[in-house]
Amino acid sequence: MCPLIPSKQVTDMKRSNLRINGRRLQESLETMAAIGGTPGGGVHRLALSDEDKAARDLFLRWLEDLNLEISIDEMGSIFGRRAGKNNSLSPVMSGSHIDSQPKGGRFDGILGVMGPLEVLRTLDENGIETERPLTVVSWTNEEGSRFPPAMIASGVWAGALDRDWAYQRTDIQGKTFVQELERIGYRGRLPARKFPVHAYYEYHIEQGPILEREGKTIGAPKGIQCLHWYDIYLEGEANQVGPTPMEGRHDALCAASEMILKVNQLPARMGGNMVATVGEIHNHPNSRNIIPDRVHFTVDVRSWDDDLALRAWEDLQQDFHSIARERGCPIRIEETWRVGRSPFEERLVRRVLNTAEALGYSGLRMVSGAGHDASYMNQIAPTAMIFVPSIGGRSHVEVEKTTWADCEAGANVLLHCLLASADEG
Amino acid sequence: MCPLIPSKQVTDMKRSNLRINGRRLQESLETMAAIGGTPGGGVHRLALSDEDKAARDLFLRWLEDLNLEISIDEMGSIFGRRAGKNNSLSPVMSGSHIDSQPKGGRFDGILGVMGPLEVLRTLDENGIETERPLTVVSWTNEEGSRFPPAMIASGVWAGALDRDWAYQRTDIQGKTFVQELERIGYRGRLPARKFPVHAYYEYHIEQGPILEREGKTIGAPKGIQCLHWYDIYLEGEANQVGPTPMEGRHDALCAASEMILKVNQLPARMGGNMVATVGEIHNHPNSRNIIPDRVHFTVDVRSWDDDLALRAWEDLQQDFHSIARERGCPIRIEETWRVGRSPFEERLVRRVLNTAEALGYSGLRMVSGAGHDASYMNQIAPTAMIFVPSIGGRSHVEVEKTTWADCEAGANVLLHCLLASADEG
Repeated sequence: MCPLIPSKQVTDMKRSNLRINGRRLQESLETMAAIGGTPGGGVHRLALSDEDKAARDLFLRWLEDLNLEISIDEMGSIFGRRAGKNNSLSPVMSGSHIDSQPKGGRFDGILGVMGPLEVLRTLDENGIETERPLTVVSWTNEEGSRFPPAMIASGVWAGALDRDWAYQRTDIQGKTFVQELERIGYRGRLPARKFPVHAYYEYHIEQGPILEREGKTIGAPKGIQCLHWYDIYLEGEANQVGPTPMEGRHDALCAASEMILKVNQLPARMGGNMVATVGEIHNHPNSRNIIPDRVHFTVDVRSWDDDLALRAWEDLQQDFHSIARERGCPIRIEETWRVGRSPFEERLVRRVLNTAEALGYSGLRMVSGAGHDASYMNQIAPTAMIFVPSIGGRSHVEVEKTTWADCEAGANVLLHCLLASADEG
Repeated sequence: MCPLIPSKQVTDMKRSNLRINGRRLQESLETMAAIGGTPGGGVHRLALSDEDKAARDLFLRWLEDLNLEISIDEMGSIFGRRAGKNNSLSPVMSGSHIDSQPKGGRFDGILGVMGPLEVLRTLDENGIETERPLTVVSWTNEEGSRFPPAMIASGVWAGALDRDWAYQRTDIQGKTFVQELERIGYRGRLPARKFPVHAYYEYHIEQGPILEREGKTIGAPKGIQCLHWYDIYLEGEANQVGPTPMEGRHDALCAASEMILKVNQLPARMGGNMVATVGEIHNHPNSRNIIPDRVHFTVDVRSWDDDLALRAWEDLQQDFHSIARERGCPIRIEETWRVGRSPFEERLVRRVLNTAEALGYSGLRMVSGAGHDASYMNQIAPTAMIFVPSIGGRSHVEVEKTTWADCEAGANVLLHCLLASADEG
């Protein structure tokens, strides 16, 4: 120690020069990617599957190596708590999820678990103490692709979803969430119930192309877009295609096609920040020589501007009704799910951007188009997210990729955001 | 007998006044409709199912009641032959099929089997002899909805399809045609091989709305339209919908929707007699929050004018390629099946119209939009069809309906067409 510099100042310098170990983070991610790894280079690690269990077991061993206080709640979410100087203060928390989409990628979710784990390892090996405890968390079944809906465990923890209802969610084979949770041995005893959290940071790949397009390294979403889901049911009149002239047909698939294009044109028509998508369609009887008599399709509308999304839906509905009328195809519309936009804590969002700048990374204020466990956390604690670029904007696919340099950069921003929040009195 | 009128003249008068028994025809149809009858008033009697077997057993008993010479060929088609005065002459034949579409109607196919059966009953009870033998036939698996393709047994019989290939067609459960044929006990010993036929008449519901719209009772198709089937495969780029801006998306379902509307507009654009339909679509991954990355859909084009159909396809392909280019969605096109139009024997078509007129029924020269066993029969014998109106143009659905009066009218036309052909030397 240099005798001319006071101890506090040395500590501060040491802290500000602190960086995570990018090589070790990469190794953690690669080790995890081998659990449920697919020939196509992706990961197939559905919630509460054997692969999920294997990844959890490994995660637990890594938490134990750090001598953390480990707890598993009754939804199977795993918490690893590193004591602070003052353990009566509420902890600072960071985490994401271990489960993947079917044939998903190697970064979605797991980066946000390995990131804070690497931060804790870095603090340990540098002998850094924080005022507040620091907790790393892995939420069960964020994807919801095996047990819909998504973000079910953070939803129960935050008090937004009911535990017993969540337990009875079934997969496509009819197995319940709770059966599978018990089968893999991860039904913990801790109640899945929120406790005070000083700040929550979720580190995640962007899952979109914005950072790459703008040439930025760190994204700081100001919040999560609103999300509106609709289900459209159309009726037509089935008939043999050969003997049925075009005049007088009631072709439900043609009506749906017109509507799908209206959805696609909606964002350009409305202006402003918006995406609108039809991802799912079911056609009946789906036979090449019978005119379709029943079509069901979905509509997904998202925007940072809640009012714009609602106005867009009003316009879209009018189009739908007039297309249905012209085609003689009765329409039924269900408003399936609506979540308003969720703005993050502005102080924390600025901290992410400032930290990125201080570390020499370019940053971008943006919006999160996808939901995350941070959506529920944002209801109960000051929350922010840290995004790193997705190459080609791809995610939920086997080719999902983020450079190791960007993974390291994001983890360094997370490190310094966690330190700053954890030192707040 | 009136002594002033010579015997030949009495016979001729008796013949021309002959009418089938409409009440008995109705009873036959209603008895058959109970075999595989659905709660919705339709019929579910898939080829080679238990219901098909039950209906065949009943049909055989009815043939036996008429002392016909019965034979079953190796494709399970059933022939009932009524001897003529000169059995060295080739027979006149009429028939259709017993199998139905899944949840199909009570008239499609079976009317064309019960019709000629009723004709033979009428001849028997009136002691009428014909020069040539008369054969009623029920072809196996005309619909092809259980074992694609359609019209498989008449196709083998006519020499257009291979028997062993037909035997290995499988249903959705993987059962083969020949396994199921043996299971129901209808693999006959007679080779499924064409023999000389003097004339073939197929009596069928129209399956379209033309006769009803025109207010006519009897339709005489001049032939069967050409039929072109295409399969279109599109690729897009899957991405999470939320974080992926509209610009730069490659949405395979939007590309497909534009193409489906082009298909729908094609007949109006080309002019002339034509129908064009997309009946089947498969979307991948078909998840409401993922941009579709793979779509397969079918195109069915039919016209009386072969060249028009080909020119239409040329135009359509250009549209498809330019849509695929604009959307950045690579396209692959398969030309799956093409059958040219099949004109019926003009002499027999005129006979149907003249017979209708002579019996006091209004008639209409038209085109058959659907394929029938008559398509293959037309390749080996002079062929014609007799259509009666489908209410609302509906068929292949449970509400399929033709009035009993129209059923009777068509059978009377069939009776006199069969008599005329069977008395030809």
